[in-house]
Amino acid sequence: MSPRPSSAPFPAPLTGVVPPVCTPLTPEYEVDTASLVRLVDHLVAGGVDGLFLLGSSSEAAYLPDGHRRKVVETVIGHLGGQVPVLVGAIDMATLRMLDHAREAVSAGADAVVATAPFYTRTHPAEIARHFRMLAGRTGVPVFAYDLPVSVHTKLGAGLVLELAADGALAGLKDSSGDMSGFREVIVGAKERGIPGFSVLTGSETTVDSALAMGADGVVPGLGNVDPDGYVRLYRLCRDGDWAAARAEQERLCALFRIVRAGAADRMGGSSAGLGAFKAALHLRGVIDCPVTAYPQIPLDEDEVRTVGKHLAAAGLL
Amino acid sequence: MSPRPSSAPFPAPLTGVVPPVCTPLTPEYEVDTASLVRLVDHLVAGGVDGLFLLGSSSEAAYLPDGHRRKVVETVIGHLGGQVPVLVGAIDMATLRMLDHAREAVSAGADAVVATAPFYTRTHPAEIARHFRMLAGRTGVPVFAYDLPVSVHTKLGAGLVLELAADGALAGLKDSSGDMSGFREVIVGAKERGIPGFSVLTGSETTVDSALAMGADGVVPGLGNVDPDGYVRLYRLCRDGDWAAARAEQERLCALFRIVRAGAADRMGGSSAGLGAFKAALHLRGVIDCPVTAYPQIPLDEDEVRTVGKHLAAAGLL
Amino acid sequence: MSPRPSSAPFPAPLTGVVPPVCTPLTPEYEVDTASLVRLVDHLVAGGVDGLFLLGSSSEAAYLPDGHRRKVVETVIGHLGGQVPVLVGAIDMATLRMLDHAREAVSAGADAVVATAPFYTRTHPAEIARHFRMLAGRTGVPVFAYDLPVSVHTKLGAGLVLELAADGALAGLKDSSGDMSGFREVIVGAKERGIPGFSVLTGSETTVDSALAMGADGVVPGLGNVDPDGYVRLYRLCRDGDWAAARAEQERLCALFRIVRAGAADRMGGSSAGLGAFKAALHLRGVIDCPVTAYPQIPLDEDEVRTVGKHLAAAGLL
Amino acid sequence: MSPRPSSAPFPAPLTGVVPPVCTPLTPEYEVDTASLVRLVDHLVAGGVDGLFLLGSSSEAAYLPDGHRRKVVETVIGHLGGQVPVLVGAIDMATLRMLDHAREAVSAGADAVVATAPFYTRTHPAEIARHFRMLAGRTGVPVFAYDLPVSVHTKLGAGLVLELAADGALAGLKDSSGDMSGFREVIVGAKERGIPGFSVLTGSETTVDSALAMGADGVVPGLGNVDPDGYVRLYRLCRDGDWAAARAEQERLCALFRIVRAGAADRMGGSSAGLGAFKAALHLRGVIDCPVTAYPQIPLDEDEVRTVGKHLAAAGLL
Repeated sequence: MSPRPSSAPFPAPLTGVVPPVCTPLTPEYEVDTASLVRLVDHLVAGGVDGLFLLGSSSEAAYLPDGHRRKVVETVIGHLGGQVPVLVGAIDMATLRMLDHAREAVSAGADAVVATAPFYTRTHPAEIARHFRMLAGRTGVPVFAYDLPVSVHTKLGAGLVLELAADGALAGLKDSSGDMSGFREVIVGAKERGIPGFSVLTGSETTVDSALAMGADGVVPGLGNVDPDGYVRLYRLCRDGDWAAARAEQERLCALFRIVRAGAADRMGGSSAGLGAFKAALHLRGVIDCPVTAYPQIPLDEDEVRTVGKHLAAAGLL
Repeated sequence: MSPRPSSAPFPAPLTGVVPPVCTPLTPEYEVDTASLVRLVDHLVAGGVDGLFLLGSSSEAAYLPDGHRRKVVETVIGHLGGQVPVLVGAIDMATLRMLDHAREAVSAGADAVVATAPFYTRTHPAEIARHFRMLAGRTGVPVFAYDLPVSVHTKLGAGLVLELAADGALAGLKDSSGDMSGFREVIVGAKERGIPGFSVLTGSETTVDSALAMGADGVVPGLGNVDPDGYVRLYRLCRDGDWAAARAEQERLCALFRIVRAGAADRMGGSSAGLGAFKAALHLRGVIDCPVTAYPQIPLDEDEVRTVGKHLAAAGLL
Repeated sequence: MSPRPSSAPFPAPLTGVVPPVCTPLTPEYEVDTASLVRLVDHLVAGGVDGLFLLGSSSEAAYLPDGHRRKVVETVIGHLGGQVPVLVGAIDMATLRMLDHAREAVSAGADAVVATAPFYTRTHPAEIARHFRMLAGRTGVPVFAYDLPVSVHTKLGAGLVLELAADGALAGLKDSSGDMSGFREVIVGAKERGIPGFSVLTGSETTVDSALAMGADGVVPGLGNVDPDGYVRLYRLCRDGDWAAARAEQERLCALFRIVRAGAADRMGGSSAGLGAFKAALHLRGVIDCPVTAYPQIPLDEDEVRTVGKHLAAAGLL
Repeated sequence: MSPRPSSAPFPAPLTGVVPPVCTPLTPEYEVDTASLVRLVDHLVAGGVDGLFLLGSSSEAAYLPDGHRRKVVETVIGHLGGQVPVLVGAIDMATLRMLDHAREAVSAGADAVVATAPFYTRTHPAEIARHFRMLAGRTGVPVFAYDLPVSVHTKLGAGLVLELAADGALAGLKDSSGDMSGFREVIVGAKERGIPGFSVLTGSETTVDSALAMGADGVVPGLGNVDPDGYVRLYRLCRDGDWAAARAEQERLCALFRIVRAGAADRMGGSSAGLGAFKAALHLRGVIDCPVTAYPQIPLDEDEVRTVGKHLAAAGLL
């Protein structure tokens, strides 16, 4: 990908591979900016089409505001506009997310990604008000982030399409695992002729299906570990080579098993998933330290060894 | 209640009525400090034993950090140590909560209230780590806040008792509605002889039951509207006048129906509950404006009228 | 309790202690009628006010129709009308439950107990239709059974009261654990003046609270193991001796810990709970074999020993 | 499809389109056998590869045993072995399902379909025991039915594969909507070389994706309404004509919107979905009466008109 002038308009729709960038930490739980820069270079070298900072895979929920700020400044300062940067504004409700969004935009974010409110008990009409205010006050494209496992609300296709048609939403990052609802958004956007609306899947193991349905791109946490694989997969799908795409996807499905290396009776799902991504990045030499944010429990030696075996099997060690 | 010298130790256990203080807002969604001061005076005049700022009933999830800061400074500055002040550190995970806790303590909070992590997928062992770090780094008593409807995790009695026995937790605010688990904590703390551990219920409609089981106090959102009622109820229970306590509790149960005035097909549960509390405070002349934080949907005129009828029936208008 | 003539009308309201009778099985998973008769005698000798057959604690969900039939015939044949017998009609939807209800009534059941439909996705209006048809076609009093952990629907207080006021429901067995909603039913029935409507709690560890609120009785699974304890507790509450009631309840709470003897990483909650009840009945010499219905996993020797220790501590061995 | 001799072995794997057959009822809620026969002929004429009786779309949860028996006898008697017939044994636990399974087999069922236990709280090890006993005692192939929306348990890929490898399961009908887990089963079965294991999707709107992943077939409720469409879709996928498959799938997705014709604030999801299928079958002249089983609420005239518009748009009227 050739350098992108800082004045480049945000792609509409955004397409391709946009990994949610892990946040490397030091053993003292500070942002490890040197490792972060190496990770970003690793992703850009892999051919990704954009970067998503401060998403769930970035451990945004765990990071204090100071850490968040440092991540955004480090990455945007380093990138020099090579690829568009989306920044998550993950927090409980509208005004708190708006504060994060403003800070991200002032640091140079090209777009903002927001969930529905959580912790609160929220009606769909309130979720619509929420996204409309974010869109109205942020000054950059706003993407909705559908992650029911964390937010405990599913964004309905009807709501997403209404907000897309109004211009309140520039895109959707769907990590719900609900392919049927995902397809409703894709088909609905096409039927209504909503120009430039970007539909991205966050599900690492069904990317070929999503793209075959007409999705614009993918935001794969596992793309931190193997950006080349996801770029290859995206291009095979774009070119309609479905048999080769399936083979590449199945290789990535096998690799994705690293998220089950951490024992479920000893740690939460976040620790297992994010710990595996970071262990893999450490084993591949991209980041200095695999530690995940407090209070997550780290993988033990055996579990890291399991991650290593999956990496080797995927041709990544 | 006579003035409390600022050097007074935090009560162990904390007992009595400790309302989670609503956060009055202006029509522009700013903190209405004049109304907040009036509300605090109204509560203290009602005889409450402490105040809990920035809890769920305070709309903490909706309030930006600047709003939160103003609430704490306004109330603590005004109170002059008359009653102990607990401050919520509601956020997604440990380090973010720690930032809130430190800010609250430096503003004079007597204790901090924290939930388990949310948004993330967290193992009980990680929840234990979380509370231990908060306890170790905060410098004031830490209360666990059990609110599964928001946090989507239930704090098990075993975990709470283990942390209480270690001194990591000074108390529990239980808004789970699970009276059986609540009783396990009460009985368990008694059996283990954990001195000074405070078990508080956040359920407005079962306070007599909770106190009869041996709970130390109550943190009633509805106590904003009728602090005198909850103080009366607490004293009747303390004195073992269970028949009169039941009658007072049933009066408060009837009043609690205001939380269903707002139509469930038009607004979320937070809007209905918090909107009703604020409408009632407005009708009673305590606060200037009943608006709830964005993106909540306000009660309409008919719904406010319903709130008024319940107030009248409870003898509060 | 003196014999009850077979022509006795069903008590309205039904009050007191009405245990859900465990179903003793042989090692070959057949109904062990000799043990069942001994269990019934043990309960009646304990002073219970009625029996509830084929509830969840009876493993009704696991029992084929032939087993169910044998249970009802055995117990009703043996009892000779000493106490009223309620029979569960647990199945997925109305017509299937109606078949069970008819069979129970023809075998002599005094009342029928039914949940909302489950497995299906059902609207409250459909739940109302469901209970109305059962009431209209059964010919005996119908009790609603609120057990969200199994049915995955919570019966709202408003719905229950509407059906009670219409005469469609004779009572409620509430095993939801939601004391606030339970109280709404009690208070609502009193306010509306619904005569004879019976409100029973199924929660073993909050019986004193439920009765203090005005509940009519209790349906305790643990009452199989210690009927005398629950009868004592009921009478203390009825007589307003709340301090002694609390002490008795706390003894039963300690005994209730047997349901956690079975390891949660090895068996489901049904196996642990029902297995503990049966192990205790076996250790107390009431039933011949502690086996639970297929495919439940039995307690191991250590776990049975733990049950025994709790029995001893409760003065039951 | 040419007639299938009654001695034909059950296909391993079962492939193609296997609709879950709706159960036409009379206005009095009896099985309408004439309509049922017409529906079966309509499906076989459409080219389906098998029939699944007494599944969720057949309203099995609502049907008394007498109704179930009549459905199985009517269809098997009429078919004369033209296509294999799978029969659901939907009930709460093992021994009850075993009774249904035996009855189905004695009536000529070629295979049996069973969920995990529900209503009960069941451990994965107990679910394994459950399927092993069904497999051991049934004498025909057993398919696992994964339907978390009804069963409230998700069958893990690991568990399914373990049972498949042991020969306890002949196939999986996956209606979980979880394409990622579905793919794990497909890929896992291939990796382990489990011969003849049949992986079928029950999700109407992602059939092309499922087949592209390597699924063997589809069990589409909407296939009652448009069997020709699903047969066409299956053949296009089998032949690798993915663009045409996607177009056919999108036509079927648009048709699937009939399930939202029934108002969600007036009826449950079962009523809306099954009511729409039956309204469509009635409008197409296949069945005499669109009534759904009690206590479901019927579509009103406007809602039926909406169904008709979707049928017309799909070229089916």
